[in-house]
Amino acid sequence: MKIYLAGPDVFLPDAIEIGRRKAELCRRHGLVGLYPLDNAVDLKANDASLRIFRGNEAMMNEAGAIIANLTPFRGPGADAGTVYELGYMAGRGKFCLGYSNDPRPYADRVRKFTDVASRDGRLVDRQGLTVEDFGLSDNLMMLHALDLYGCRLVTPRQAPADSWRDLDAFETCVRLAAERLAAQPRASG
Amino acid sequence: MKIYLAGPDVFLPDAIEIGRRKAELCRRHGLVGLYPLDNAVDLKANDASLRIFRGNEAMMNEAGAIIANLTPFRGPGADAGTVYELGYMAGRGKFCLGYSNDPRPYADRVRKFTDVASRDGRLVDRQGLTVEDFGLSDNLMMLHALDLYGCRLVTPRQAPADSWRDLDAFETCVRLAAERLAAQPRASG
Repeated sequence: MKIYLAGPDVFLPDAIEIGRRKAELCRRHGLVGLYPLDNAVDLKANDASLRIFRGNEAMMNEAGAIIANLTPFRGPGADAGTVYELGYMAGRGKFCLGYSNDPRPYADRVRKFTDVASRDGRLVDRQGLTVEDFGLSDNLMMLHALDLYGCRLVTPRQAPADSWRDLDAFETCVRLAAERLAAQPRASG
Repeated sequence: MKIYLAGPDVFLPDAIEIGRRKAELCRRHGLVGLYPLDNAVDLKANDASLRIFRGNEAMMNEAGAIIANLTPFRGPGADAGTVYELGYMAGRGKFCLGYSNDPRPYADRVRKFTDVASRDGRLVDRQGLTVEDFGLSDNLMMLHALDLYGCRLVTPRQAPADSWRDLDAFETCVRLAAERLAAQPRASG
């Protein structure tokens, strides 16, 4: 079984090493991790971004599952590229797993970025836009997609010292995927 | 043809009025707009977030296309729920349109939220994470999904005075959807 390894990990300075570690953890559990950076693209090419898109999409189509790193990225919520990919895989009926190395509810994280107030029974930010306050870790569409099409979001009890490099929650996802696949051998990809 | 109207518009204090205006613009172009808030959910119910998910997903499955409002939301990029929905619709092979009322490239917007520097030929933020710098308005996965599965992201020349309520770019998407459907009557939903 091939698993697409989505996440903002690709933006880290040591992105290749993280991908190597993730793929190795998959291997230990009998799975094959497909990591976006395995698509070697010349970033100076005029169509570099389109080539990356096509490479990632081909990997997603090849995979039977996704493990999405939904650790907050450059704001209170998950990385947009990763979220797009989780949606794409859900739309294609693939097995969906995800983790976040920040265990706080979304509303608590928003408070770190902007003033939040209660108004007319809603929690709102400085612009007057509602802040989702269901006690979930991020936007409900992603969280319930995981619940319904895979496993509940995996989070640590406490944020690890290095949220970008600690792979305990990731490995839990790999283990859950391996267990689920052992129970449902039909699901392959 | 039914079009799912995704966007953080649902978080506005006047969300219902915005939805009414969007649906009316669809009607004028011969299309049916499905707006998430048309799913009446008691927000105090224990399973409110799951009911919203199910309502939105049912609407997406019913629709043949999506118009995603990718105007930056609570950070430098688009709303996560909307991005998930765009990915979901792309995964299901639906016709994908989107707009952003902020015409700036993503990298320029990131500069408003965090320090950005050039390092080893990459643009990086304060945490050392790469800032996508392809001149695109947001993450490449969303932008190329629109290019390939619908129409290029629609942006105004200049950000309108009220980015949350100006519907010119939205109406352009509706017009593009109506034109495309007139040319390809097969695509329905």
